[in-house]
Formats: sequence, structure tokens, C-alpha cells
Amino acid sequence: MSHREPRETDALLERGNRDENVMYQAAGHWASVRHKLRKAFAEFLGTAILLAIGSGAVAQLVFSKNNTYGGMCFAWGVGVIAGIYVSGGISGGHLNPAVTLASAIFRDFDWKDVPIYWASQFLGAFFGAAVTYLANMNQLQNTPKDQTAGIFVTALQNDTISTAQGFFVEFVGTAILLIVVFATSDKGNAPAGLLQPLIVGLTIYAIGTSFGYQTGFALNPARDLGPRFFIAITGWGFQVFSKQAFYFWVPIIAPFAGALGGAFLYDLFVYASGPSPLHNYQ
Amino acid sequence: MSHREPRETDALLERGNRDENVMYQAAGHWASVRHKLRKAFAEFLGTAILLAIGSGAVAQLVFSKNNTYGGMCFAWGVGVIAGIYVSGGISGGHLNPAVTLASAIFRDFDWKDVPIYWASQFLGAFFGAAVTYLANMNQLQNTPKDQTAGIFVTALQNDTISTAQGFFVEFVGTAILLIVVFATSDKGNAPAGLLQPLIVGLTIYAIGTSFGYQTGFALNPARDLGPRFFIAITGWGFQVFSKQAFYFWVPIIAPFAGALGGAFLYDLFVYASGPSPLHNYQ
Amino acid sequence: MSHREPRETDALLERGNRDENVMYQAAGHWASVRHKLRKAFAEFLGTAILLAIGSGAVAQLVFSKNNTYGGMCFAWGVGVIAGIYVSGGISGGHLNPAVTLASAIFRDFDWKDVPIYWASQFLGAFFGAAVTYLANMNQLQNTPKDQTAGIFVTALQNDTISTAQGFFVEFVGTAILLIVVFATSDKGNAPAGLLQPLIVGLTIYAIGTSFGYQTGFALNPARDLGPRFFIAITGWGFQVFSKQAFYFWVPIIAPFAGALGGAFLYDLFVYASGPSPLHNYQ
Amino acid sequence: MSHREPRETDALLERGNRDENVMYQAAGHWASVRHKLRKAFAEFLGTAILLAIGSGAVAQLVFSKNNTYGGMCFAWGVGVIAGIYVSGGISGGHLNPAVTLASAIFRDFDWKDVPIYWASQFLGAFFGAAVTYLANMNQLQNTPKDQTAGIFVTALQNDTISTAQGFFVEFVGTAILLIVVFATSDKGNAPAGLLQPLIVGLTIYAIGTSFGYQTGFALNPARDLGPRFFIAITGWGFQVFSKQAFYFWVPIIAPFAGALGGAFLYDLFVYASGPSPLHNYQ
Repeated sequence: MSHREPRETDALLERGNRDENVMYQAAGHWASVRHKLRKAFAEFLGTAILLAIGSGAVAQLVFSKNNTYGGMCFAWGVGVIAGIYVSGGISGGHLNPAVTLASAIFRDFDWKDVPIYWASQFLGAFFGAAVTYLANMNQLQNTPKDQTAGIFVTALQNDTISTAQGFFVEFVGTAILLIVVFATSDKGNAPAGLLQPLIVGLTIYAIGTSFGYQTGFALNPARDLGPRFFIAITGWGFQVFSKQAFYFWVPIIAPFAGALGGAFLYDLFVYASGPSPLHNYQ
Repeated sequence: MSHREPRETDALLERGNRDENVMYQAAGHWASVRHKLRKAFAEFLGTAILLAIGSGAVAQLVFSKNNTYGGMCFAWGVGVIAGIYVSGGISGGHLNPAVTLASAIFRDFDWKDVPIYWASQFLGAFFGAAVTYLANMNQLQNTPKDQTAGIFVTALQNDTISTAQGFFVEFVGTAILLIVVFATSDKGNAPAGLLQPLIVGLTIYAIGTSFGYQTGFALNPARDLGPRFFIAITGWGFQVFSKQAFYFWVPIIAPFAGALGGAFLYDLFVYASGPSPLHNYQ
Repeated sequence: MSHREPRETDALLERGNRDENVMYQAAGHWASVRHKLRKAFAEFLGTAILLAIGSGAVAQLVFSKNNTYGGMCFAWGVGVIAGIYVSGGISGGHLNPAVTLASAIFRDFDWKDVPIYWASQFLGAFFGAAVTYLANMNQLQNTPKDQTAGIFVTALQNDTISTAQGFFVEFVGTAILLIVVFATSDKGNAPAGLLQPLIVGLTIYAIGTSFGYQTGFALNPARDLGPRFFIAITGWGFQVFSKQAFYFWVPIIAPFAGALGGAFLYDLFVYASGPSPLHNYQ
Repeated sequence: MSHREPRETDALLERGNRDENVMYQAAGHWASVRHKLRKAFAEFLGTAILLAIGSGAVAQLVFSKNNTYGGMCFAWGVGVIAGIYVSGGISGGHLNPAVTLASAIFRDFDWKDVPIYWASQFLGAFFGAAVTYLANMNQLQNTPKDQTAGIFVTALQNDTISTAQGFFVEFVGTAILLIVVFATSDKGNAPAGLLQPLIVGLTIYAIGTSFGYQTGFALNPARDLGPRFFIAITGWGFQVFSKQAFYFWVPIIAPFAGALGGAFLYDLFVYASGPSPLHNYQ
């Protein structure tokens, strides 16, 4: 279509051409917006798919006897794999504000892009939660709210778990995640290449079955905060922020801290393919 | 054999040669048919294997205590992996009319091939259902028909799920599937190369554990319609079309709509390796 | 060591050299045997590992509450993956007389090697069963023999399954296996390269969860016959051959027939990278 | 920063430069230590991640209804995958003193590095156990010690299993592990390349579901001894060494013996890409 020469033989065609010109201008405008925002779009779509799959699996665990805890962990893992493939070549496939922050501090990720990535990830998680909400609407409306908040947000899973323990678990889980993410992209170590999304996804599964029963393994500030806003404004109310002595800050701060801790450890001891703030030479 | 010079030393050999010539002609004829229909054959065989494995796993869930819902989802995923490998290099490994339609609209797939692919996928699904039928014949004949239709066709899984919810779930599931299929073959993004069938199969698993309890996740018009025809004519009767207020149209129309929706979203926001109806340049 | 010049300064060193020469000759002899039998050794070791892992998983299912049917199917799949990697580059990683037969008929596998492969596969399966026996000896000695034969050999799994059904299931399962094996090594289709063992292993898992409850999915004459001989001579007696109206022939003949059927179908309809008995050109 | 020319315009900058020089020296010192110890660091970090994930999964099995035995086996597998990726390009990703010993005897691994690797692996396992301890501290403090030792160390899993059987199972499991490790890195066989960590991890899973109910599959002297020291000094006491007639030596000696047995078998029969102590030529 873009290579067709305009012919001006009658009014109909002429109007058609005029419409086409308008379309050309619109397409040109969109192409420009699209180019500027393509990383934001990729992070948005990838995080939305991660949340739709992941929180969908929790919903299935709550509303049917079908799913198991292990199956739910594996669904989060595949959600990460799918999300990284959807965005990886465009934005790097962070899908997680803690990964973005660690990349800005320890790698050459541009600080200017950090707020754009964070906003896209948060909005993607919000949108993914909306998909899960719509897919389970009938069941959500007929179940007490306090039994369904856990589909969307993480929490201390029972009374024997302290906030300190929850913080520690989220810290360690995200640290392991970052170590694996940094190792599998370290050209001087054992870069996973094509397999990287798969290895990261399997690691998410394993963290879920190893450090998941305490807090529900957020490991990602956007994954928790986006859906928390979503349910706060769609019927659960803003008390979802005040529950468990304002626990909501833990799945935000602990993953950030854990990501930096893991990246620090990896760079200090192992990183082998370039300069890092921790060493100028290998 | 094809390089042997015909010798004419005695009647036996001569007759042998004549037979061989007939075989040569037959082989030549077959080679011509085969070449023309090779894409159709590949789609047929791939879809048949997908259905034999997938509906076989549902049958095992119904007839024995062996299988689990998660194991059944994983079998559908591996069925897709096996089916794509069986056909991928010949036909592209669609195995799904909704993938074919989206490829015709958003990629350069030839519209002329669309009806051939659709027919092959439908017949493959029909044949795969026949394999499952034969593998479970004794059990099928001794179990009430309404308890076994679910081995072959999808349905609203219980009374709390509305048709609208079912449509939405099939729409979203197929949209996610198409986004992953398009992303993993987008050279400008993060093409999965050799891993593509594996990633698509894992995504099928994850959709099953995330959006599966509502409808049984058809995600594919042929996967539902082919087996529905098969059981309609082998003992369940044509009421399999009228059940649940003629629900049968949902697993046909919703996957088509979802595939187009997912492809539209992907091309609008992320597609990075070529022209699309939605943008002429990256 | 092999590059050291012999020095003849004293008796001790001389005796040492004499010993070394003996070792050299032995090593040379072994190298020659090894070279001639390397394919046989590879098939033996690969099949032994397949059986040790697979029947070990059945034993764990029988003797503890740990394992599940799905986990057992996955163990057989990983057993195939491990076995192929152990032998693939040396012998092609058949591990299955039915794969060997189909390769001789439909590919250019040398008929002279067929009996060597079959014997190695049978002996490997026998040896693998012995490993499982030793690993579970205490439990096997304290459990009635009829409850433990199923660890080693396949059978019709309950009374509702006829011999014809069992034959059909083994036929179809092996046909699917061969189609996937041939497709993933067909350079004109979608060759799986490095991933081939993984795809074949996942297919074994899926066949187990789709066509496994009827017969215990032998899919491989050696996998059943080797262990059957092993238990016949280690306490279960030769009645393991006469049970279920001499069912033992089904897991031998049906996999052979299914392998040929699957290979025939694949070559007739899809095979795209070379001549086949079914067509001289693509 | 390292390329900036020092400017000496005022005292503040000068002091800054002096500080920077100190930092340079420190960084230079660290870079030197880091370079000398990089293999040790990699083995430490990889083994710590393996243990944190693996024993974390056992803890989740003990303290919640979430996890299953199969899920726990898969977590150990993914722990190995993650650990190998974290260290593979630096140290080879042994993570296991038995792999290190077999590499020194059968491959060209430097004997001088053996004690360094062993110490790093032991300390990594000790540290990984500490992470699991902290992540489950509240639950560990409120549960009788004899119910929780199994989170950290292996043991004969019930009274029907003899020490001889335990030794045999650990021997065979580690032998299979070494055969797969050696095969997947044998350039003359079927090297797994990028997939190697994945194949080794899947093999760990399969060994767990096939030879795991007897002893809890240590397969690795450091994986058992490191955590045993950790719990001995953090509340369980040194009787963790004397339990089951001083069983603790089995998960040390049997994996060493099994690793050598497996490597011997592989090299004797199959090894195809270089000299081995067992043959000078192929």
C-alpha cells in the first residue's frame, strides 16, 4: 500500500487519496509516538501478561480444586518467560522495578529511563490484575473480599510469620533472582543466550517453592503495588494498604533492597565481563 | 533403487521392470499430490497429534486416578510442542485456525491457503479425537455419555460461570497465545529460534492453569469443533451442539476474536521486524 | 605417559617398563575392542540409565507415598533425555529396538548393526532393572511378588482393558514417538538440533499421561523384555511371561508395529529432507 | 572514573583525589584478591544458591502443606541449574566435591585447585543452610529439633532401609549424575552446550524421584556435611553426627565412590573426545 502511486482519475479515488493522506499523517504521528514509547509499551505488555497469568493461577487455586501450589508457582515462572519474550528485544524484559534499579546502578542502564520503566511496569501490573478480575468476576462477587485479596496481593501467609521474617524472605528471594539474571547475561561467565528467559522463569518457580509459603513471593514491587491499587479502587477498599500493620511496604522495599544486595554480591565476587561500580577491571 | 538401469534378460525381470514402472508412475503421481498437499498434510498430522495427546490426557483424568489437572495442562502443552515440531518447517505449525487467520491479516500468509489450513486442522482434530476414542473405547462404552463428552469438547465448567465470562476467558487466553507466538517469531524483538515450540507449549500450559477452570481452555476453533463433530456422529448425538444454550459457538468465535485482538495489540505496540497493517515503518 | 622414552638404567625401572609394555598391549587390545563395540557400549549404557531411572521411579511410587503418577512419567521422560545424551553422539541414542528397526527400514541405518543394537538394548534394560532391584532390595523381599512385578514390567492395568485395547494404545503411543523422533531429526522440516533429546523426553512424558493408564506405556520392546527376564530369574519365576494370557508379547510386537506405522505415516506425508522407501524425491 | 585525569586546583579536590587514590589502592588490592579467588568465590556462591533453594524447598514441605515431594525434587534440580549458571563460566560449576574429584582424576582439572574447590563448596553449603535457617527461624524454633534436622541433612528415611542400601543408592545416584555430566560435556559424543545446566538439573530431579525415598538423595558430600556442621552448632548439637550409627559418613563417602564409579564406566566404554587415564586413544 505504501508504494502505490496516487492516481487522480475521479472524485471517488480522489477522496480515497485524501483519506489515505489523513491516514498517512495519523500513521506517521503514531509511528513517532510508538518509536518514542516502544520500551514503555514493551514493559507494559510484558508485565501485564506476567500478572494476568500469575494472578490468574492464584485465582484458579482459590476458586477451583484444579490447581496446586506448585502449579501456581510454575505458572508465575512461565508468566515471566512469556513476558520476557514479549518485551526482551525491545526493552530488555525487566518487568520488575527492582531489576530496573539494579541495572541502572550496576550496569549501563540509562537513569533517564528508570521512571518510564517503573511507570510502565506499575501500569502493566494494574492492567494484568484487571484481566484476572474480569476473568473471575462472577466468583469474586460471590466470595467474601478477605478470601480473595490474596489473588492479587501478597501478605504474611499466617500468624507464625513475623514482618522481619517476611522482609528477609523477600530480600533473599529477590537477591537470588538478580544473581541469576546478572549471571545469565554475563558474557564472561556462562551466558544463557536464547535460554535466558527459560532459566529466569525456572528460578522464579524454584524461589516460589523454596521461599514462598511465608509471604507469597512478590519479588517485584510492581507485581504487588499495581494490583493493590487495582483492588483498592474496585471494591476491597484502601484498607488493603493498612492490613497486617501496613505490611504493603515490605513487598516494595524488600525486593528493591534484595535486588541491590544480590547484584552487589554478584559483581563483588563473580562478574566477569565488564566494569562495575565495584571494580574497574576483572 | 532409482539409479538402477533396467535389464531385459528374462521374463521375470521384465515383469519386475514393468511393475517397477507402474510403481514409478504411481510414485511420481504421489510425489506430485504430496508436493501440492504437503502443507495440508503437515497441519493435519500436527493437529492430530495435538488432539490425541491432549484429549488422551483428559480421558486419563476421567478414567483413572493417575492424572491431575496440572498434568493434563502440561500434556496439552507438550502436544502443541510435538505438533509444531512435526509440521513447523513445512507449514509453519499453526495447528489452529485462529493462528492462521491472524497470520493472513497481520503477516504475509497467503489468503489462498487459509481454507486449506482450516480444513486440515479441522480434519486433524477430528482424527485425533478418533484416536482418543479408540484408545479408551471400553471405558467410553461403559460410562454415561454426559460424563465423557468433556474428554472431547470444552464447556462452561460449572453453573457459576456465565457465557460472557466464558467468552472473555477464551478471548484473553487466545490473545496471550497470539502475543507470545508473534513475539517469539519477531526478529526485531527476542526471537526464540529453536526454542519457539517449547515456549509456545509452556504458554499453553500456563494459560490452562490460569484461565482454564472456567471453560476448559479451547483457545482453538478446530480443537473444539473437530472432536464435537466426531462425538456427534459416534454416539453422543447432535445435542452436543445445543447444550448450554448452544455454547459451541464460543470456543469457535472467541478464539478467532482473541487471536485478532492479541495480534492487533502486539503489532500496534511492540512489533519490530517488518511492516504490519498497523504501521508501515518501525 | 605415552610419550615417555623408556630408560634402561636399572632392574627396577626395567621391570617397570616391562609392566608398562604389558599395560600398553592390554590398553591397545582394549582400545581395539572398545572401538569395535563403542556403539554397543553406548546403547547398553544409555538404555541401562533409562531403565534405572524409569523403573526406579515406579519403585518409589510403589514403596513410598512420595512419588506421583505424573512424576513417574516425567522421570521416564528425563531417563530418555539422559540416555540419549549419554549415547547420542556415538550410537544415535536409539535405546529402543523399535527405533532401530524403523531407522533400518526408513533411513540409512545399517542392517548389520540391528542385531548388535537390539542385544545391547536388551542387556542394558536387564542391567538397569538389576540396579532398581538392588536399590529396593529390602522392600522387594518384604512385599508379595505380585505387587512388585509392575515395577519392572508393563501389563494391562485393570480388568476393563482388553488385549486389543492394550495393543492399540502401545501401537499409537510408539507411532507418535517415532513421528516426533523422525520430525525432530528431519533437516527439511523443523530439526530440533540440541533440543532433540529434550523434545523426545517431553513426548514420552506426554504419552505417559495420555496413553498410560491402560498398559503402563512400554513403547519399547527392550524396556519390557529385559526386565521381564531379570525378574523371571530372580524370584518372580517364568510365570511373568504367562500372566494375562501371555500378554508379554504385546509390549514387544505393538511397539515394533507402531514404530513402523508412525515412520510410514511421517515419510508418506511429511518427510522432507531425503529419499525414503516411500518416495524418491520430495 | 578510571580514565579521569586528576586536577589539582583546590584543597577539596586534592583531598578528594587522595581519597580516590586510597580507593584505587583498595580497589587494586581487591581486584588482585578477587582474581586469585574468583573460582573459589564462584563455587561458594553457586553452592550457596543450590543449598538455599534446595533446603528451602524441604523446609516448605515440612512447614506448610504447599509443597510436594516431586516439587521439592524439581527445586533441587533448578537449584543446580541456577548454581551452574552462576558459576559455570568461572569455575566450571562443580558445586560438588565429588564432581571436582572425578574431574581431577579423569579430566585435566588441576589437583592444586581441589582443596580450594572443596573448601568453597563446603562453606557455600554451610552459608546456604544459614539462609534457609533464617528464612524459617520462627518455625524452626517452635518445632521439635528431630522433626527439622531433615530440612538440612539427609538420613535413612525409615527403618526398612539398611545402611548398605543407603550406600548403594547414593553410589548409583551419583554415578548416574557423573555419567550425565561427563556425557554432556564430551565433544565427541552429544555435547549439550548451552543446555548442559538444564540437562544436569533435570537429571537431579529424576534421581530424586527414582532413588530418593531411601536416603533423601545427597549425591554431594558438601550438600550434606556443610549443613550438618551448621545445625550442629546452631542448636541441634553434635549428635547429628552420631544418629543412625554414625550414618553421616555415607553421604560423604558414597557420592565420592559413585562419582568415580560413574566416571570410570563412562570413560571405559563411551568417552570419545580425548585421552583419559583409561585409554590413550579413542
